[in-house]
Amino acid sequence: MNARRIHNFNPGPAALPDSVLEEIQSNFLDFNGSGMSVTEISHRSRWFDDIINDAIARTRRLLNISDQYKVLFLQGGASLQFCMVPMNLIAGRQSADYVDTGTWSTKAIEEAQILGKMVNTVASSADKNYAYIPRDISFTRDARYVHITSNNTIEGTQWPEFPDTEGIPLIADMSSDIMSRPFNVLPFGLIYAGAQKNIGPAGVCLVIIREDMLDRVQDTIPNMLSYTTFASKNSMYNTPPCFAVYMVQLVLKWLEETVGGLEKMDELNRQKSDRLYRYLDSSDFYRPTAQTDSHSLMNVTFRLADESLEQRFLQAAQASEIEGLKGHRSVGGCRASLYNATPLASVDALIDFMKHFENHKG
Amino acid sequence: MNARRIHNFNPGPAALPDSVLEEIQSNFLDFNGSGMSVTEISHRSRWFDDIINDAIARTRRLLNISDQYKVLFLQGGASLQFCMVPMNLIAGRQSADYVDTGTWSTKAIEEAQILGKMVNTVASSADKNYAYIPRDISFTRDARYVHITSNNTIEGTQWPEFPDTEGIPLIADMSSDIMSRPFNVLPFGLIYAGAQKNIGPAGVCLVIIREDMLDRVQDTIPNMLSYTTFASKNSMYNTPPCFAVYMVQLVLKWLEETVGGLEKMDELNRQKSDRLYRYLDSSDFYRPTAQTDSHSLMNVTFRLADESLEQRFLQAAQASEIEGLKGHRSVGGCRASLYNATPLASVDALIDFMKHFENHKG
Repeated sequence: MNARRIHNFNPGPAALPDSVLEEIQSNFLDFNGSGMSVTEISHRSRWFDDIINDAIARTRRLLNISDQYKVLFLQGGASLQFCMVPMNLIAGRQSADYVDTGTWSTKAIEEAQILGKMVNTVASSADKNYAYIPRDISFTRDARYVHITSNNTIEGTQWPEFPDTEGIPLIADMSSDIMSRPFNVLPFGLIYAGAQKNIGPAGVCLVIIREDMLDRVQDTIPNMLSYTTFASKNSMYNTPPCFAVYMVQLVLKWLEETVGGLEKMDELNRQKSDRLYRYLDSSDFYRPTAQTDSHSLMNVTFRLADESLEQRFLQAAQASEIEGLKGHRSVGGCRASLYNATPLASVDALIDFMKHFENHKG
Repeated sequence: MNARRIHNFNPGPAALPDSVLEEIQSNFLDFNGSGMSVTEISHRSRWFDDIINDAIARTRRLLNISDQYKVLFLQGGASLQFCMVPMNLIAGRQSADYVDTGTWSTKAIEEAQILGKMVNTVASSADKNYAYIPRDISFTRDARYVHITSNNTIEGTQWPEFPDTEGIPLIADMSSDIMSRPFNVLPFGLIYAGAQKNIGPAGVCLVIIREDMLDRVQDTIPNMLSYTTFASKNSMYNTPPCFAVYMVQLVLKWLEETVGGLEKMDELNRQKSDRLYRYLDSSDFYRPTAQTDSHSLMNVTFRLADESLEQRFLQAAQASEIEGLKGHRSVGGCRASLYNATPLASVDALIDFMKHFENHKG
């Protein structure tokens, strides 16, 4: 590869595996001998059937998912799921439990409330700027589901383990840590994840839904907002976002065949974040913002002890070919996103840069 | 270009300009010197701002759109618009007029009805298998809008000119003929178009909406289904489908700078469809299915006089590097889609193939 490539710590859309980008590039005018670009083939063709079915099969294998779940590819990102989940799964006077661990949890709660649904916010870490994940939560006995955000991209926290909801189906927004580690899918009624962090480009949302959730969906819901529509048509009720699904397929292939599965991916991800957190903890110049017991392996949020230096820090990073360190505009500060495709070498380059900046105070 | 390229008559996703595909391919690992793939850049970056703002500016110039309209890029395809249009624009006991000219019109009507909205089907061509566009329609005086499908991809018909609705805002699904010809935008309150036929890949939907339509939107609508959300955030309330928007930008650039605008595009499109219709009319072996006064310049639908030969015809076409001629599974038969990027040379190749098949009866 001759192209210039910088160190990409973007929070999403984010770094993707070089080998995936190279494969797309080399096939872009003639996909698999079809004589067409992958962007020009029909979604009703055998070529696209192979793409989407392989993406589904790889998702099943990587997450060890049984037949009682459907794997879907939708549009609208996780944000549309904030609306589809309560619209499909809370009827009439029923209610659902939500755990508020940051910006995206809050948006999910708001969207359910706009729909007029009853939401119980059973726990929140708003009291400490969302710097931790709440523990020992009491859930509502007849809640239809418990909604959590598995990783909080903006605040840099992540559930170290998932809560025991005593049989109430868990629903999780896993946009920023899906496929970064293995976990037991069984307690989950529904998992959704915008692809643009760990598994692909923007423009497609992975939805994994259990059959008993599908049984709840009312037929008064518009076709394009109903999970049953997509489940019954293998995500092809209408034209799916073909290119984004194709890219997800290639990333999942890379995860299985090059990385070697989610245990191995988890090991690599821990190595990356451990190295960065260890450096942050050793320095008085930088300060991590999330509590250690809740910190994210995906998004490492930090401040400079002297916050007035942050602007200069971010500019110097860009000048050193280190991209994407600016914290979310709603919280400021700095953030390094270490998704699956970010190599360890980039983390080392980041730490070297941070040491240099610390030693020379910019 | 060394890649093998066949003649692509797919109904969507469809042929795209070679030069656009080549530009994407050459920049795929390093977009505009960013050191990142276009699929890896942040949607909050200056790079993506340039992409989406250029796509909007080109849309405005190509269609001659005034400031009273917003140009948006949404997800979910035209199918999600079937639901968003009535959800946003019909309140309480209000009603809207729909003209039923085929499969997609019917779906739009159904989706409005599932929402419990009052729909007046003021005209339909169902009586003749949708082979024509109705004329002399009486609209409902207090209808909130009149919904039409400007081109009927499956049935091969197209409005030769748009109806005079006497001030009632027109709303059109233009998925399969947007940017294929110039037209006066002013009577339209809203235009929507899935990109995957004339202006890009699957995964993004262009929406052009007039300010008085935005004023109607209730704040009880979920954020992700409200036009005001996208209009107030330049289509970036959440992460947009970046790659698809980028590809649309390049296709619009090609339309402006290589083709030379929509008058020129229309001329080329007429040349292509004229040539094919003239051949069909001259042959007893093939039979066009749409009435001449309503036939589409985009999708030429036809049957073989001996329908039992159609399967062989379609197989022979594929063997001759001619792709996408199979009619929609709901109607059968044959269809050649001649969208903007299909070159005249492909139409000539198709006619040559059809003549050969006719002469040798397969």
